[in-house]
Amino acid sequence: MLKIGLDAMGGDFAPEAAVKGAIMASTEIGPESKIVLFGDKTKIETILAAENCPADRFDIVATTEVIEMGDHPAKAFQQKSDASITVGFAYLAKGLIQGFASAGSTGAMMVGSMYAIKPIDGIIRPTISSLVPTVSGRFALLLDVGLNVDCKPEVLCQYGLIGSIYAESVLGIENPRVAILNIGEEETKGNAQTKAAHEMMKASGRFNFVGNIEGSHIFSGKVADVIVCDGFTGNVVLKMAEGLYRINKALGGAQHKFWEAMNYEHIGGTPVLGVGAPVIIGHGCSTPQAIRSMILSTEHTAKANLTEKLRLAFKD
Amino acid sequence: MLKIGLDAMGGDFAPEAAVKGAIMASTEIGPESKIVLFGDKTKIETILAAENCPADRFDIVATTEVIEMGDHPAKAFQQKSDASITVGFAYLAKGLIQGFASAGSTGAMMVGSMYAIKPIDGIIRPTISSLVPTVSGRFALLLDVGLNVDCKPEVLCQYGLIGSIYAESVLGIENPRVAILNIGEEETKGNAQTKAAHEMMKASGRFNFVGNIEGSHIFSGKVADVIVCDGFTGNVVLKMAEGLYRINKALGGAQHKFWEAMNYEHIGGTPVLGVGAPVIIGHGCSTPQAIRSMILSTEHTAKANLTEKLRLAFKD
Repeated sequence: MLKIGLDAMGGDFAPEAAVKGAIMASTEIGPESKIVLFGDKTKIETILAAENCPADRFDIVATTEVIEMGDHPAKAFQQKSDASITVGFAYLAKGLIQGFASAGSTGAMMVGSMYAIKPIDGIIRPTISSLVPTVSGRFALLLDVGLNVDCKPEVLCQYGLIGSIYAESVLGIENPRVAILNIGEEETKGNAQTKAAHEMMKASGRFNFVGNIEGSHIFSGKVADVIVCDGFTGNVVLKMAEGLYRINKALGGAQHKFWEAMNYEHIGGTPVLGVGAPVIIGHGCSTPQAIRSMILSTEHTAKANLTEKLRLAFKD
Repeated sequence: MLKIGLDAMGGDFAPEAAVKGAIMASTEIGPESKIVLFGDKTKIETILAAENCPADRFDIVATTEVIEMGDHPAKAFQQKSDASITVGFAYLAKGLIQGFASAGSTGAMMVGSMYAIKPIDGIIRPTISSLVPTVSGRFALLLDVGLNVDCKPEVLCQYGLIGSIYAESVLGIENPRVAILNIGEEETKGNAQTKAAHEMMKASGRFNFVGNIEGSHIFSGKVADVIVCDGFTGNVVLKMAEGLYRINKALGGAQHKFWEAMNYEHIGGTPVLGVGAPVIIGHGCSTPQAIRSMILSTEHTAKANLTEKLRLAFKD
């Protein structure tokens, strides 16, 4: 039995949105999977009852505290020992659940990932990533999208391998094309960081490195399935895409499935990659639909044995 | 009389597209301005005749060579002393023309800008910039978009002042809002470079610094009129915007004036800022419409006395 943990108290519209999203996901996950809800048991059961959902469809782990958005993440993680996120990570660390997702405090989720779960041996810096839609119809993985804003070339090179393994095992892309986001196609182009990283990635031989990808091709699908960049650039790219998605929607032009795919509600949150268990962080404003996608994506990651594959790859 | 130079031999479709664009612009520029065409006189006159345009509407400076896209920019600039770009810059340096535009070799245009024209005293690194449309209907200036990919904070701080002067004098925006592209609104956010630059820009007092701008607001118009970033980030942003513009157009969704404004043909090329005369570089694939916009934008910059204003600002 695969147990997928959800922080029922995480997100601006929790616990309603979280529990409703869990109900949606529960009808779609595999028969050998079960969703475990962490949070205020009474509130959770009230929502389940209102939604006519049998409570035994879920495991509920009662917690009494919540790490708020305004809390200092590291301090709150230590002090609020009965918070939904803290308890969720304790379960994850003990192997009582096989993945954990929350739309709550990103900071606390990172603290949990780094200190309760810990980086996989050999990975210099874990990373947060995002799926980006392409006009080819399939998603590409962009990493890092905001965790490591100053990246050494070695770190970028590792992101190539991490991304390649994710794309292959979770997205099901065979021999995924890995590129580094850069300012020109030629390998001599770039800033000091990307030039050095390009060389390392080319020499690595551990993944299908296809060279540089320019900003114009992030969404074309023509160049890469995995797009590596530092967290500064990735964050700008991701937020710019979100901004243009919103603008396009407001202008009445978002009907095409390419733009619809950019809707964060379908993306399934931000996987934390390179730590010892599947962790996914959702938008604070997550709707039930977004929570649903996040749970399915967590289940998918757990099923794909991503963590073990990463451990194996970074063992040597 | 204001004389605006155009490299008639520059661009993939030169000289036809260049001369046709010049004809379009000639009916729109002020009565006290004249376009000076640099290039193959016979070819230029043939096109003018075919277009039923009197040749005396232009000054024509006959040149016999062309710097090709494949040429080494610095070497070609030295060796092809009768190339349209080389002669154009000689005219510009002597004050025989008050601005120079080309859709030809970007490298040669930069060599001309830096060595024939030279940076303005006090400016550490000249920059190339781009106008980006916003949903508010007015343009914002993004700089740098690819020249200086590794920027010291001092350089970014200067870009704030350069951009502010450009936005005020050329775009006519009063007290333009200057922001630094960053990964969060809070001033403590960023990588080492943007955090240091933020502090310097805040302390400078030379322009209306409004703090950080996130990727999501580049096109909203809500935060800034001038967006400062290093050339790596700016290049990714610009190319990503171009890529999404093309995708959106292909999907049939580019009718709205916001998307239409993203069409490079209306943008008027890439101003080189911080050198001692107006220089504008166009896309290699420039159409007559794009050449027209570039000429008008060069005239506009010359009329606005941008160079003198920059000299004055960086004198102290």
